[in-house]
Amino acid sequence: MNLSIIRRILGYVLLLEAALLLLPTFIGLIYGEPQFKAYLIVSAICAAVGGALGLKKPNNTVFYLKEGCVATALSWIVLSLFGCLPFLITREIPSFIDALFETVSGFTTSGASIINDVEALATCTLFWRSLTHWIGGMGVLVFIMAVVPLSGSNINLLRAESPGPSVSKLVPKMRETARYLYFIYIAFTVSEALLLIIGKMPVVDAFMTAFATAGTGGFGIKNDSIGGYSYFIKAVVTMFMIMFGVNFNAYFLLVRRQFKKAFSIEEIKWYFVIILMAFGIILYDLKGMKVPTGQAVSDTAFQVASIISSTGFSTANFDLWHPLSKGILFGLMFIGACAGSTGGGTKVARILVVFKNAFRELDYYIHPKSVKKVKMDGKPVDEQIIKTTNTYMLTIIGIIAVSFFILCAQGNSIETNLSAVVSLINNIGPGFDRCGPANNYAFYKTLSKLVLIFDMLAGRLELYPMLMLFNAKMWKESVTQSNHRLKRRLHI
Amino acid sequence: MNLSIIRRILGYVLLLEAALLLLPTFIGLIYGEPQFKAYLIVSAICAAVGGALGLKKPNNTVFYLKEGCVATALSWIVLSLFGCLPFLITREIPSFIDALFETVSGFTTSGASIINDVEALATCTLFWRSLTHWIGGMGVLVFIMAVVPLSGSNINLLRAESPGPSVSKLVPKMRETARYLYFIYIAFTVSEALLLIIGKMPVVDAFMTAFATAGTGGFGIKNDSIGGYSYFIKAVVTMFMIMFGVNFNAYFLLVRRQFKKAFSIEEIKWYFVIILMAFGIILYDLKGMKVPTGQAVSDTAFQVASIISSTGFSTANFDLWHPLSKGILFGLMFIGACAGSTGGGTKVARILVVFKNAFRELDYYIHPKSVKKVKMDGKPVDEQIIKTTNTYMLTIIGIIAVSFFILCAQGNSIETNLSAVVSLINNIGPGFDRCGPANNYAFYKTLSKLVLIFDMLAGRLELYPMLMLFNAKMWKESVTQSNHRLKRRLHI
Repeated sequence: MNLSIIRRILGYVLLLEAALLLLPTFIGLIYGEPQFKAYLIVSAICAAVGGALGLKKPNNTVFYLKEGCVATALSWIVLSLFGCLPFLITREIPSFIDALFETVSGFTTSGASIINDVEALATCTLFWRSLTHWIGGMGVLVFIMAVVPLSGSNINLLRAESPGPSVSKLVPKMRETARYLYFIYIAFTVSEALLLIIGKMPVVDAFMTAFATAGTGGFGIKNDSIGGYSYFIKAVVTMFMIMFGVNFNAYFLLVRRQFKKAFSIEEIKWYFVIILMAFGIILYDLKGMKVPTGQAVSDTAFQVASIISSTGFSTANFDLWHPLSKGILFGLMFIGACAGSTGGGTKVARILVVFKNAFRELDYYIHPKSVKKVKMDGKPVDEQIIKTTNTYMLTIIGIIAVSFFILCAQGNSIETNLSAVVSLINNIGPGFDRCGPANNYAFYKTLSKLVLIFDMLAGRLELYPMLMLFNAKMWKESVTQSNHRLKRRLHI
Repeated sequence: MNLSIIRRILGYVLLLEAALLLLPTFIGLIYGEPQFKAYLIVSAICAAVGGALGLKKPNNTVFYLKEGCVATALSWIVLSLFGCLPFLITREIPSFIDALFETVSGFTTSGASIINDVEALATCTLFWRSLTHWIGGMGVLVFIMAVVPLSGSNINLLRAESPGPSVSKLVPKMRETARYLYFIYIAFTVSEALLLIIGKMPVVDAFMTAFATAGTGGFGIKNDSIGGYSYFIKAVVTMFMIMFGVNFNAYFLLVRRQFKKAFSIEEIKWYFVIILMAFGIILYDLKGMKVPTGQAVSDTAFQVASIISSTGFSTANFDLWHPLSKGILFGLMFIGACAGSTGGGTKVARILVVFKNAFRELDYYIHPKSVKKVKMDGKPVDEQIIKTTNTYMLTIIGIIAVSFFILCAQGNSIETNLSAVVSLINNIGPGFDRCGPANNYAFYKTLSKLVLIFDMLAGRLELYPMLMLFNAKMWKESVTQSNHRLKRRLHI
C-alpha cells in the first residue's frame, strides 16, 4: 500500500475543505451571526492539518485500485470528521455522534437529519449543511482532480468515487473529464437557483435549495421541507431533481451536439419509463384517497422525482399514503437514478443488467446450448460486468440485512428499521413510520446511528471502498510490505 | 415440445392422486364421517381422467429440460386443481379460490391456511390436508419415478422438482436414487409418529403431525398449532423439523457407513451454525421480555427450527416478539433449509455460494489479476453455478417485489404484505402482523391469493418450471414445431 500518496490526497481534501468553510463564514458575517467564528476556526484547523499532510511530496506516485479505494473512503471520513466540528462548536448540535451523522448525511447526499427544528439554525449553519450536499454530489476527489495535477492513474480515484457500474471517460484526459462534469454541474445549479429566485425565493435560500437538489441531497431549510412553497417552486425543484438523476454523459453529448447519441441511451429511456409508471400508479392510488387533482399531480410528481433521484425532499407526508403508493416508493428507493449522475440508489443501469440477465436465464431452459448475450445500448455486455453487477446487488442486500438486524436489536418497528436502512444505503433520506418524512432520525441510539453512518458512506461510495477498510487481509499485506521496505532500508 | 410425454406424466400423476385419495376415504369410513364420499368421488374422477391421459403410449419419449419443467409445473397445478375438489364437495371450504389456496399451500408444503377453525374439520379432511404436505415434501414426480419405469432422461424431471442448486444422483440409476430417498423419508416419518404416540398423541394425530413435519409443511391440526402439546412432543417435533431440513445425501451416506464424508458436508455444518446463532440471539432477546427460562428455550428452539426448515408450525405468537427476534426470523425465512432436503427457502448452499462470491469480489480490489476460486466442500465451484445462483437469488427478489406491489394494491400494511410474500415464496407459512401465527390468510382478496398461489408454486419448484409457463417464446416455438409436424404428416 502506497500510504504516502494517500496522505497527500487527504491533505488536499482538507485544504479544499478549509477553502469551502470560508463560504459559510462569509454568509455568517453578512447576516451578522456570531456562529461565523466556528466556521473560521475549523477552516483554520483544516488548513493547518491539510497543509502538514499535503505539502510533503509522496515517496512514489504508484497508485493502484486498492489505493484508490482506501484514499476515497478515508477522504470521505476525514471530510466528515472535520466538517462536523462547526456544529459542535456552535452547540447547534451538541452531541458528537449526531453532528457526525448530520455531516455524513450531508456529504453522502442522503439528507437524513437529526435536527428537530431546522428553522432555528443560523443561516451560515444551514448554508454549510446544504453546501455539503453540493460537494458530495459530484464528489470531492473529482473536484480535486479538476484543479490539482495528481500524477498516477487517476481513473482509480474516479472509479472509486463516482456512482455507477462503469466510469466512462468522456474525453481521453481524466482532468478534462472532471472539469466538464463540474462545468455542467455548476451551470445546472445556477440555473435552478435563478428559477427559484424568479419564483420569489430569497437569494440565499434559492442557492441552498439548489445545492441540495444538485447533489440529490435533500436537506430542507424549512421544517416542512418544500411543502410550504408555491406550485411553481415545487415544479422547478421536481424538474431539476429529475435532471440531476440523468447520466451526465447525456448532457456532455448534448453540449457536443451529438443529439441522436444522447437520446438513444437505454438507461435514460428506462429512467423516464419508470418515473412515468410510478407517477401513473401513485396518481391513481391518490385519487382513491380523495386528494384534489392539482395537489395530487404536484405531490405525486414531486415525491416520485424526489425518491428515484434519491434527493429526499418532500411536499407531502407520504408515510400516510396507501400501501400501494408506499410500496412503489419503497421500490424506487432501490432503483435510484442513472449511473454517472449525482443520484444514489443501485442505479437503473444495474437493474437493467440484472433483469436482462434473469430473462436470459429462462432461455437456457428452452435452449440449453444457446449462448445469447445480454445487450445494453445494442452492444453486448461483458459477462464479467454481469457477474460484478449481480455480486454488487447481492452484497448490498447482505449489508441491508446485517444493518437491519443491528437496528432491530435496539428496538423500533420492522417497517421503521427496514425503510431506514434501505433509504440511507441508497442515500435518499426519509423512510417510513418513525423515520417518515414528518419525522427525523434523532431517536436512534448511538450504535444504530453508527451503522447508518456506515451505510450512507457505503452506499455513496458503492460499497467496495468502505468494505476495503474492514478487509483485514489488505491491512495485513500492507503491513508485511512496509516491514519488507523497512528491512531493505535497514539492510537487514 | 413433446406434448405426448407430458400428457402421459400428467396421467400418472392423477392415477397416483386417485390412489392417495383412498387414504382419507378410509379414515372417513373408520371415523364414520359422511365426508368420506367426497374423497371417494374425487378419487374416481382422478382415476378416470388419469387413465384416459396416461394409458395411451406417447408418440416419442424424447424428453428435454424444457419438457421436464413444463411437465413438473403442470403436474403440480393439476394435482392441486383435483386435490381441492373434496374441500368444495364437503363444503368445508365453500370458495374455489380458498380451496385451491389451501391445497397449493399443502402440496407446496407452505402450510399457510385460510381456515379459521381447523378443529371443526372432519378427521378425513384434516388427514388429506396433512397428506398433501407429505406428498409435496419429497415430490410427486420423484415418487412416480420410483415406481413407474419412465423412459427418457428422468434427471430432467428430478432436476425440475427437487429443491437445491444441483441434484446429485446418489447412485447411477435415477430410479434407485428416487427409491432410496423415499425409503429414508418413510423411515423418518414413521419414527416421528411413533415418538409422538409415546408422547401420548392419538395415533391418527401423530401421523398427521408427522406428515406435516416430514414435508416441512406446517398445517396444524389444532387451532393453536403445536402450542397446546407437552414439552416432550414439542421437543420431538423440533428435532424432526431440523432433521428434515438436512440434505438427504447425508443420511444416504450414513446408511452406507460413510460417516466421515457425511459429517464433512459444509452446507450442513453452516445449517447448524445458523440454527445455533439464531437460537442464542433470540433466547437472549426473550430474556429481555421476561419469558421464563424453560418456556423461552422451548419456544426459541421450536420457532427457529420451524422457520429455518420452512415448516411453519408455531408454539408461540412470535409476531408479539421484539423486533430483533422478528428480524432474525425474517432472515431465516430467506435462508431456509439445506439443498436436497424437503425444506424450502433459498437454501443454505445458495447463501454460502453468494457469500463466498461476494467476499471473493473484495479480493479483486486488492489483487485485480488474481483468479481465486470459490470453494465448497474443498472443491472449486464452477463459475457457471455461481452465475446461476446469483441470478436465481436476484430473480426471487424480483418476484418478491412484483408480488409485494400487487398485494399492496389491495391494501394491508407493508409488514403484512412483505412478510406474506417472503413467507410463502419460501414455503414457510406464517408471516407477521395480519398474517402472523395467530392469524391466517383468509382476509386476502382473490387477486392477492392468486399471486400467493403462484409464489408458493414458484418457490417450491424453484422458479423456472413456473416461469416457463409464462414464457411466450417457448409456446410460440412449440406451436411452430407442431405446425411443422402437422404439415409433414399431411404432406403439405
